[in-house]
Amino acid sequence: MKAITIPEFGDEDALSLAEVPTPELRDGEVLVDVAAAGVNRADLVQRQGFYPPPEGESELPGLEVSGTISAVAAGVEGWQVGDQVCALLAGGGYAEQVAVPAGQLLPVPSGVDLIDAAALPEVTCTVWSNVFLTANLQPDEVLLIHGGSSGIGTMAIQLAKAVGARVAVTAGTQDKLEACAALGAEILINYKEQDFVTEIAAATDKAGANVILDVMGAKYLDRNLDALATNGRLIVIGMQGGLVGELNLSKLMSKRAAVIATSLRARPKAEKATIVAAVREHVWPMISAGEVRPVVYKRLPLAQAGDAHRLIAESSHIGKVLLTT
Amino acid sequence: MKAITIPEFGDEDALSLAEVPTPELRDGEVLVDVAAAGVNRADLVQRQGFYPPPEGESELPGLEVSGTISAVAAGVEGWQVGDQVCALLAGGGYAEQVAVPAGQLLPVPSGVDLIDAAALPEVTCTVWSNVFLTANLQPDEVLLIHGGSSGIGTMAIQLAKAVGARVAVTAGTQDKLEACAALGAEILINYKEQDFVTEIAAATDKAGANVILDVMGAKYLDRNLDALATNGRLIVIGMQGGLVGELNLSKLMSKRAAVIATSLRARPKAEKATIVAAVREHVWPMISAGEVRPVVYKRLPLAQAGDAHRLIAESSHIGKVLLTT
Repeated sequence: MKAITIPEFGDEDALSLAEVPTPELRDGEVLVDVAAAGVNRADLVQRQGFYPPPEGESELPGLEVSGTISAVAAGVEGWQVGDQVCALLAGGGYAEQVAVPAGQLLPVPSGVDLIDAAALPEVTCTVWSNVFLTANLQPDEVLLIHGGSSGIGTMAIQLAKAVGARVAVTAGTQDKLEACAALGAEILINYKEQDFVTEIAAATDKAGANVILDVMGAKYLDRNLDALATNGRLIVIGMQGGLVGELNLSKLMSKRAAVIATSLRARPKAEKATIVAAVREHVWPMISAGEVRPVVYKRLPLAQAGDAHRLIAESSHIGKVLLTT
Repeated sequence: MKAITIPEFGDEDALSLAEVPTPELRDGEVLVDVAAAGVNRADLVQRQGFYPPPEGESELPGLEVSGTISAVAAGVEGWQVGDQVCALLAGGGYAEQVAVPAGQLLPVPSGVDLIDAAALPEVTCTVWSNVFLTANLQPDEVLLIHGGSSGIGTMAIQLAKAVGARVAVTAGTQDKLEACAALGAEILINYKEQDFVTEIAAATDKAGANVILDVMGAKYLDRNLDALATNGRLIVIGMQGGLVGELNLSKLMSKRAAVIATSLRARPKAEKATIVAAVREHVWPMISAGEVRPVVYKRLPLAQAGDAHRLIAESSHIGKVLLTT
């Protein structure tokens, strides 16, 4: 089969379309003929050599796909050859075929195109596990999303809105903020022109945000504490602004607040399966009902994976970028 | 009535026995004739001027007492004059009488001396709210307690042990570690001679501690992350080692861990009442059954509050120091 490989870590040109062996199925896995693969910022970091796959997993990039099941190994129940699915992966998505543990499969939701379904697994599982399972966002609370127009952001806005929370976002352009507003964000903050701490305070009668979903890490750590409400939960899922920051424990204590950092890829299969099952139970009905939808910015052929990475790096996209086979 | 006042912030001699007005009862409060007041490290910080009482609360030190109800205001149900109680306070405990919101009262548990009961409210409420309600310690998990021989520590050991968790402690002397072992601690670490990260790793087959109850703050922040298990929860309830520390978010993320800082005193009355009710439901039966007991190091007369503070500052005590009226 054809797949995108990374012969040597480096810039976008490090991605190379090559002929590689079809993945071998292990018990409990299915083979998926890939229709499309979602591109995630983590893939860019893996390409640069700083985000190796978990032990025993595919070295190929790609954390999510959609496609059709073409083989089923022993120990798999509930899935058959021909099923249209999307899947959360530990790697291997930038390929014509990928082996997937059955617990990481989701059906293509009704009303969603097979290719667009590749935009769903990472963002729904990331947002549901962090914002709802871990931070336990409540209907009357305020969620601040940094990077509201990203793939994660566009899903977080919709899910928080769907459960009745109030959504604040930061983004760097007026276009992006308008896209966030169209999805349900109420508090729009242009981080290039406004201070998010000041804006959150103004919009919440000084109460602050109950939950913050952050991708900036160290750079925003102290200001995120300032923007948090009493009993607030700061969830760090990206570190685009650095890994090590100063934590003012006195500030954290005065708010009785929590700083939590998580990632999805490194979790054991059983934890991934639990998250996928929760997403299927809680998020899939919202998608089928049309309340929540994948936001796809662009589809590119698999061979143009480098261009897709350039797009993400330039950060002018709104929503997800997909690679089609 | 007589009470310990702080005419000017300063060292132990700043504490002054004086005649002050009896507290006025507000609706929903009872008046308690104090038998004994617990001494907490926070009282030392208040005496130095760095821990002011919440707005509208007594300026007198003292976060917990035991005693007998001598008056009941309007809006109080379930409590009567003559009831022997202990109570969690926002302040005012170093006195012959104190006004207490009814939601912060607990009966003296059967089998516990009225005076010793003053050793219970702060430690049971602090440990239950943090280790169980917030960190959700599970029966098969490992709890690391820094300062295992403190009032908080001696209660945390017993409660964790009672629910079936495995307990690790740090302390600075062999005597203290033996006292911790007698209460149920299994992993004993002398922090003056051993590195707690190394010892926890050795004792847990490198898995780490699932929950850490910390009073050192900044000084231990990074090493606490090193000692945490995957999905671990670090709960900071004291900052004896500094307020601002470096937080390695990459380390936190690799463990999918949480740093939470809390305090009890600043919580609104409704939250305190919720915690007190949970303690009464879950902890009081363990005390009545003799599984868990207050650990009292010394009783001193109220007039010797300064000596009590010196004792705590020297840190040679094991368990609680009480002031009797």
